[in-house]
Amino acid sequence: MEHSVNYLLRLQYDGSRYEGWQKQKNTDRTIQGKLESVLGQLAGCPVQVNGSGRTDAGVHALGQAASVCLPGDIPKEEILAYANRYLPEDIKVLSVSAVDQRFHARLWAKEKTYCYRIDTGSKKDVFERKYVYGFPFSLDIAAMEQAARFLEGTHDYKSFCGNKKMKKSTVRTVRSISLCQQEGKISLYFTGDGFLQHMVRIMTGTLIEVGLGKRSPESMKEILEAGDRRAAGFTAPPEGLFLVSVEY
Amino acid sequence: MEHSVNYLLRLQYDGSRYEGWQKQKNTDRTIQGKLESVLGQLAGCPVQVNGSGRTDAGVHALGQAASVCLPGDIPKEEILAYANRYLPEDIKVLSVSAVDQRFHARLWAKEKTYCYRIDTGSKKDVFERKYVYGFPFSLDIAAMEQAARFLEGTHDYKSFCGNKKMKKSTVRTVRSISLCQQEGKISLYFTGDGFLQHMVRIMTGTLIEVGLGKRSPESMKEILEAGDRRAAGFTAPPEGLFLVSVEY
Repeated sequence: MEHSVNYLLRLQYDGSRYEGWQKQKNTDRTIQGKLESVLGQLAGCPVQVNGSGRTDAGVHALGQAASVCLPGDIPKEEILAYANRYLPEDIKVLSVSAVDQRFHARLWAKEKTYCYRIDTGSKKDVFERKYVYGFPFSLDIAAMEQAARFLEGTHDYKSFCGNKKMKKSTVRTVRSISLCQQEGKISLYFTGDGFLQHMVRIMTGTLIEVGLGKRSPESMKEILEAGDRRAAGFTAPPEGLFLVSVEY
Repeated sequence: MEHSVNYLLRLQYDGSRYEGWQKQKNTDRTIQGKLESVLGQLAGCPVQVNGSGRTDAGVHALGQAASVCLPGDIPKEEILAYANRYLPEDIKVLSVSAVDQRFHARLWAKEKTYCYRIDTGSKKDVFERKYVYGFPFSLDIAAMEQAARFLEGTHDYKSFCGNKKMKKSTVRTVRSISLCQQEGKISLYFTGDGFLQHMVRIMTGTLIEVGLGKRSPESMKEILEAGDRRAAGFTAPPEGLFLVSVEY
């Protein structure tokens, strides 16, 4: 592509209907696939959209980031309008900005924030039923807060990794985990330099088990030391998870 | 039913999948139908659920009210738990309270509040797409506020009635219409002693036309005086409408 411009896109999507971010051979129900199809139509040639990272099937995004090279003669306002017109109603491009040609949404990402939402009511609020994990039990928030302190920092998070075949380093830095409770709903915010596959969902499941009294806050240390997925708690389901933002 | 108790139910529902509140012969996709089916199962005999009023196909409720007689030997906690367990995930019973045997949710209703939500952004927020009307144009809120003043009070609202065959009185009292704007979203709240078929949606459509500059705020007087549906504006679509509460 001659005279191409590299763009950073900020995206919002409802992951309910999708097989996740990453394009797959056997399905066109992926976010990346939808974006490449619509932007390829606009560009008049195949394009590659690089996300800041994959989100699993059913996981949502309030602020996913992605980079894509497009012909330089298309104004960015037109890219935004065209994408939002032709993308389905559950994917929305929030903004389009020209960036350095070398910029890559995954490689340049410095920090990400995820939010996991839990509804502890007897039945989920009907308007949020696809965007929250319904867990109708009382949770000890103070204990969960204490446990979260042990999970912050720079650690080997192998016990919190859903990929058994992971060969690369499983060391990450989680800068903060904060909990927020409001009217029977609990939101857990995770900010860090990167997260392993299912890591936020396994940390959430483990913190929920602390909230139930099944594990002590201090036991988080042993889980980290074990370096074994079986030492940690259950994987919380995808519908409660949101990729909130990506920092560069 | 011997030793029956009359109950007031407060309900929340996402109307997207339904043909409206009122039970119909040819479909089981009605809110009343779902409630009568589940509560009839609990009671062990057919029951009749009386709503405070019908909501149209696609209209939502944050606080619909309904009354139903059930056998007196079932604790109200059990009614709540059973209903929420067997009702689909888009209908939720918020509360169950025993009331006077003569209580009737429609006949005893004193005041209702509806909310109509409009998203004026270029594309709807993906997480609210089923709960807001997407109207991507700039609206003059001050003019809409002015127009709303003319629609408040006790008037013959025949021009705002969607039922051409309406034979009963079309006089109603609208105590207040208030507008609230926040981040490209506009919420219109309507409180009154009762509303005619489509009345809130026609008032909203008419106020939107004022917001676009197609009608003047003062022209509301003429519309009321006309007593003719054709004098008012368009009927705003159902997805933006919520029955917020019913007062007794």
